[in-house]
Amino acid sequence: MMKAKVYVTIKQNVLDPQGSAVQGALHALGFGEVGKARVGKYVELELQTSDKNEAEARVKAMCEKLLANTVIEDYRYELEQA
Amino acid sequence: MMKAKVYVTIKQNVLDPQGSAVQGALHALGFGEVGKARVGKYVELELQTSDKNEAEARVKAMCEKLLANTVIEDYRYELEQA
Repeated sequence: MMKAKVYVTIKQNVLDPQGSAVQGALHALGFGEVGKARVGKYVELELQTSDKNEAEARVKAMCEKLLANTVIEDYRYELEQA
Repeated sequence: MMKAKVYVTIKQNVLDPQGSAVQGALHALGFGEVGKARVGKYVELELQTSDKNEAEARVKAMCEKLLANTVIEDYRYELEQA
């Protein structure tokens, strides 16, 4: 079995209202040192496969088809034996 | 300046409906090898500080106060010079 960790982030030049809200809330709580804040998604998947190359291709396809909206989001992933 | 990467995940024994939805959608798309799926948050913060120990304590406080709901969520973070 393998475990995939997928990180989906909003592209650098796309507006991130959730990040702005987090930044504002942190400032209001007294954390004035916080500059830019960006909020993304983190997905952990268990995969019933042991072939790392195949898993890599499959996870990439999952990101493209469902997990990330590639128009406005970037993704990266890590695979590990579990 | 430092950069903090915060990962917020739902605790192991707490129900994760968003994860179940992702798992179901991936199955429906033909990714039958996907076992458990868990969805969390990923937050990137820029911090106007250069003291790593202080930054660490501040980020921990941000997680406890705002970024994570520690009743049902776990968090971890990484700090790096940026």
